[in-house]
Amino acid sequence: MLCRTVRFGDTDAAGVMHFHQLLRWCHVAYEESLERFGVACGTIFPGPGRTPAVALPIVHVSADFLRPLVCGDPLAIELRPQQRDGGSFEIRYRFLHDGQEAATGLTRHVAIDAASRRRTDLPGSLVLWLEASRPDA
Amino acid sequence: MLCRTVRFGDTDAAGVMHFHQLLRWCHVAYEESLERFGVACGTIFPGPGRTPAVALPIVHVSADFLRPLVCGDPLAIELRPQQRDGGSFEIRYRFLHDGQEAATGLTRHVAIDAASRRRTDLPGSLVLWLEASRPDA
Amino acid sequence: MLCRTVRFGDTDAAGVMHFHQLLRWCHVAYEESLERFGVACGTIFPGPGRTPAVALPIVHVSADFLRPLVCGDPLAIELRPQQRDGGSFEIRYRFLHDGQEAATGLTRHVAIDAASRRRTDLPGSLVLWLEASRPDA
Amino acid sequence: MLCRTVRFGDTDAAGVMHFHQLLRWCHVAYEESLERFGVACGTIFPGPGRTPAVALPIVHVSADFLRPLVCGDPLAIELRPQQRDGGSFEIRYRFLHDGQEAATGLTRHVAIDAASRRRTDLPGSLVLWLEASRPDA
Repeated sequence: MLCRTVRFGDTDAAGVMHFHQLLRWCHVAYEESLERFGVACGTIFPGPGRTPAVALPIVHVSADFLRPLVCGDPLAIELRPQQRDGGSFEIRYRFLHDGQEAATGLTRHVAIDAASRRRTDLPGSLVLWLEASRPDA
Repeated sequence: MLCRTVRFGDTDAAGVMHFHQLLRWCHVAYEESLERFGVACGTIFPGPGRTPAVALPIVHVSADFLRPLVCGDPLAIELRPQQRDGGSFEIRYRFLHDGQEAATGLTRHVAIDAASRRRTDLPGSLVLWLEASRPDA
Repeated sequence: MLCRTVRFGDTDAAGVMHFHQLLRWCHVAYEESLERFGVACGTIFPGPGRTPAVALPIVHVSADFLRPLVCGDPLAIELRPQQRDGGSFEIRYRFLHDGQEAATGLTRHVAIDAASRRRTDLPGSLVLWLEASRPDA
Repeated sequence: MLCRTVRFGDTDAAGVMHFHQLLRWCHVAYEESLERFGVACGTIFPGPGRTPAVALPIVHVSADFLRPLVCGDPLAIELRPQQRDGGSFEIRYRFLHDGQEAATGLTRHVAIDAASRRRTDLPGSLVLWLEASRPDA
């Protein structure tokens, strides 16, 4: 369970959270979840002079917006990561405000070899995180 | 058919377009399409001291990412708006680079009364745009 | 003192924090500081159906970038708000990573009457926050 | 002279352009200006598998906001790039709406060797662009 607050820069002229910010929050929640599990950002995400052997690009996203969110709204974010096969996983996100579901999101990731850009297996650290994230784990 | 170029600020440390920028581009393409048809921004989108009677919030989005896009890539964007019923519509987007599909997107919108936030009918100008956007129109 | 972590979506293809994200962080830090002091977001920032009598638009910003920041870098953010006159204030921000200054920022705000858009006095809650934020307070 | 239109996603709940979008537009205008002069994006900005020998990070920005901008506002953007010394340059931007200055911006860039991250000379293509951009050129 992660937390964040809707900020003024997340809103648009309709006064509510602008829809594509939700996808940004999904990725931040994914990064925070990995961090809490002990997977260092630099082992998964590229940076200057560090290119992990396996990249995990997002190939599909979706989101449903159930209630308007306004500046100052505190949100609880639930993640349900799930392995799909040896080379891909997806994460389902629920955004709760005041105990009610305000939005849901989904990101689907595939593992590719950073050099050849061909499909490959998920890195071990990610598989451990996926296993530890199972509801029955 | 609309055009845009991937900009440096659209990329992330993997060197390619960061996924949620695509959703931003979808909305810009929708605004540009309305403008070209002659629907003024101010009649559809709120601004200071102007609140259209009917709001058109996005209730669902999805996107598929087929090829990496890098800074400087020119894109052609195709929109296929479609009315779903009297009070909702969706838009399908195709992003083409070098003649090949690089990504697709979908946004689904519902009409709500701005005051009561209850479902209502689509504004007339939007219905005309939807009709004119039909492939057989 | 506030905290945040550089996220993957904050980076660009150079592998480091994309410059304009810093300005976004400044505003978030300002909102968090107000919240901690007990000033509710809704009394300062507009939202649907709530327009505070006084708006506080930003009229000037600047930032200096001293060191590159990469995904996963934890930052400590120091704010030094300062009243300029009855109707304006500014905030200086320092972003520290590993005990070293990585960037600084400045935002300057003026109070305007939301209806007439003429200059007016700062709201009382903001003046209290400014006084409490003085180094000698 | 470049053009753009304020889009709905550029606004915030105050109904006007959210301040940090202006810095994003500055960078896009800089990229477009280089492109029009014939400097390919890939020779200046990094991408997957392509790291130009010289990086041009921004070390300072500032902006002044003179008038509110709302969704649909067309803007004309003027750039005045200027070399500062052998290893740095700055660009001044004016954003005009309806013939009036709505905002100004400034970005200052230094050339660094991408490998050592030490200060170096500006790339030749950039110097040519700077010379061609001189008001008396």
